Amino acid sequence: MPDTQTNANGERVLADLNALRAIGAYKTGVHKPTFSEPHRQSLDWLVQKLPDAGLSATIDGIGNVLGTSTKAGPKLLAGSHLESQNYAGWLDGPLGVIYALEAARVLNADPSVKGAVEVAAWCDEEGHFGSFLGSRSYVGQVTEAEIDAARDRTGGRAMRDALAEMGLSGRARVAVEPGRHVGYLEAHIEQGDTLESSHLAVGVVTSIVGIWQYRINFSGEQNHAGTTRMAVRKDAGLALAKFCVAIDERFPDTCGPRTVWTTGRITLEPGAPSIIPGGAEMLFQIRDDNPAVIARLEELLRTMADEASAKGPCTVSVEKIRTGAPAMMNAGFQDAIEAASKAVAGGRSIRMPSGAGHDAQMLATVMPAGMLFVPSIGGISHHWTENTADVDIVTGAQVFVDACRRILSA
Amino acid sequence: MPDTQTNANGERVLADLNALRAIGAYKTGVHKPTFSEPHRQSLDWLVQKLPDAGLSATIDGIGNVLGTSTKAGPKLLAGSHLESQNYAGWLDGPLGVIYALEAARVLNADPSVKGAVEVAAWCDEEGHFGSFLGSRSYVGQVTEAEIDAARDRTGGRAMRDALAEMGLSGRARVAVEPGRHVGYLEAHIEQGDTLESSHLAVGVVTSIVGIWQYRINFSGEQNHAGTTRMAVRKDAGLALAKFCVAIDERFPDTCGPRTVWTTGRITLEPGAPSIIPGGAEMLFQIRDDNPAVIARLEELLRTMADEASAKGPCTVSVEKIRTGAPAMMNAGFQDAIEAASKAVAGGRSIRMPSGAGHDAQMLATVMPAGMLFVPSIGGISHHWTENTADVDIVTGAQVFVDACRRILSA
Repeated sequence: MPDTQTNANGERVLADLNALRAIGAYKTGVHKPTFSEPHRQSLDWLVQKLPDAGLSATIDGIGNVLGTSTKAGPKLLAGSHLESQNYAGWLDGPLGVIYALEAARVLNADPSVKGAVEVAAWCDEEGHFGSFLGSRSYVGQVTEAEIDAARDRTGGRAMRDALAEMGLSGRARVAVEPGRHVGYLEAHIEQGDTLESSHLAVGVVTSIVGIWQYRINFSGEQNHAGTTRMAVRKDAGLALAKFCVAIDERFPDTCGPRTVWTTGRITLEPGAPSIIPGGAEMLFQIRDDNPAVIARLEELLRTMADEASAKGPCTVSVEKIRTGAPAMMNAGFQDAIEAASKAVAGGRSIRMPSGAGHDAQMLATVMPAGMLFVPSIGGISHHWTENTADVDIVTGAQVFVDACRRILSA
Repeated sequence: MPDTQTNANGERVLADLNALRAIGAYKTGVHKPTFSEPHRQSLDWLVQKLPDAGLSATIDGIGNVLGTSTKAGPKLLAGSHLESQNYAGWLDGPLGVIYALEAARVLNADPSVKGAVEVAAWCDEEGHFGSFLGSRSYVGQVTEAEIDAARDRTGGRAMRDALAEMGLSGRARVAVEPGRHVGYLEAHIEQGDTLESSHLAVGVVTSIVGIWQYRINFSGEQNHAGTTRMAVRKDAGLALAKFCVAIDERFPDTCGPRTVWTTGRITLEPGAPSIIPGGAEMLFQIRDDNPAVIARLEELLRTMADEASAKGPCTVSVEKIRTGAPAMMNAGFQDAIEAASKAVAGGRSIRMPSGAGHDAQMLATVMPAGMLFVPSIGGISHHWTENTADVDIVTGAQVFVDACRRILSA
């Protein structure tokens, strides 16, 4: 395939991304929670743009925007999401939607390209109301009861009320049409520093890691912080601290090369300055794309808990509260992205897993899926300073469009 | 002094304590927050009882009950408090009030005893609305502005509203009358296990420890728990855990024989399972009756923080938020309690500091003060299972009455 064919228009891509940034702007980022006014305006903006790519646009009953084509030939679904975390960055989500829009604009109008790119903006990937609600709905995993119960985690607004205010009450939800698509392709900022620190332009995602989450409980004895001698205390908070340090010491010998683990929340009971904590809890998360690694680490965790309980004075229990199977990216799609990188980005790409979750992991349950990463400056994400150099945004768009062309012609 | 004089009536003491337990009973303890209905009834109960001891009773404008005598001779002030922590024990407070009442009943009617015991029930020792409000008011340390601002820490009710509902609005607060009292004596359950584990009946309190409190802050870098490699993380929560463990390892070499220290509260920012904490905070408390020991430990704490900051990747800062000078108990009062223990309890006493705060530390700022402890079963306090064996309650009462007699005749 020659490299001289029509490709992404970098200026148009940057202009579109900046147009979306202007809706709900916050400092250099955006504040665009799901079903907020800026989110609604962003969906409408996309609906207005899709016809330029030869696509018919609809917003479905859960807030997914879908652009469909009547062009003959294979269809490749591409997209990401338009809402943001609270007071967060401008590229997390919109980058993938605009790349998909650009690919559709370039390829759908090109009679030499067999088939078309269809565009999706999945609603609430950021989880204001639930977990991947839009893409999960599309793959058939969201019930009406789940929507009935969903509330905004920040303000508590019921999802049904939010849908009504968006004018979406009673609309059907669009579900995957088996056989319609050859697969799904999504671009995203890396949200880490692997590409930047290696001076690379493109990450070819091999898998989206699974997330395993544990609630680790420490049970001691609540007592008076003034009258209880150190020697007889059963301080659940101290037991927790020792356990955190032990994880830090022992996990590196057992983990895989890319495993990450995080204690994100700690609670002491009752949490008063003059009371020795009788109970303590930590939320602990492990991510890896290899379930065998997770299994080893979980066994280590349980062994450590048993050892700590046997040693005393507190008892430790480990409860698994979330199991997330990793999503493998399609091998052919990885090859297409790598070939596109060689063709238009000097081959400055690397294969890597995604440590963060993305809509692609939901789509991967029903069709071949692939992901492309562009560098994140300083690896920063979920913060208004999140950014990517313009040159990297443009290069990424060119690789993405070229990869779509290769997949459609495969 | 002969040991055969009229002494405490153990059955009467137990009956009175059980009468107070029946007001606001919760399981085997009580739920009697300051200015609750059971608290009001308990104050009224005491007001009804004080004339039996030859005392005139008043409730002052902050809810202190004071029983005053017109008997000639020296006056010894004695008492404790009647409210409880939420859902807590039956003896923390009432024991000292009933011992004082019993001492007044026995000694004020005895013409051979020169002078009288006067009784006080200090309001809100348990700190529902403030810190030692009743006894601090009596020693002149509470302003009207502090009362204006005070609110119930559980329900948020304004103290002014609570005082109005108690019928105490506009009443004068009674202040210490310089020269009136030879001193103040208070009995209390130990709230620790020193007496029980040594099979002793009486603790002769040497001092009430000071409480120093610190806010220790850890500053790292908030980041995505999936995309940030372990090697580049600046996890403030992990830094906090390591600091807790380091305190546990290093404090024992520097502390005094009775120092206690406690991390009562830990907060991670932002405290979400998928975000590496960028900030963390612990509330840390040290108690000792020797300020030199505290000074050494505070220096160690600051050294450890500097070392941790220098080592990285997080910075640690230590902020002192409370300095509490220890209150020394009067040497003559200690001797009187010890002599009483020899006379009526077979000398089964030990001198010990109080690790908990008590109204006696406020009274000690304006007059000689002493405290007597009785054993706590299992060292439990601030819990409804708090208890003391009846035989220990009765022995304690006898020692208390005898100690009062000795102080009045000194």
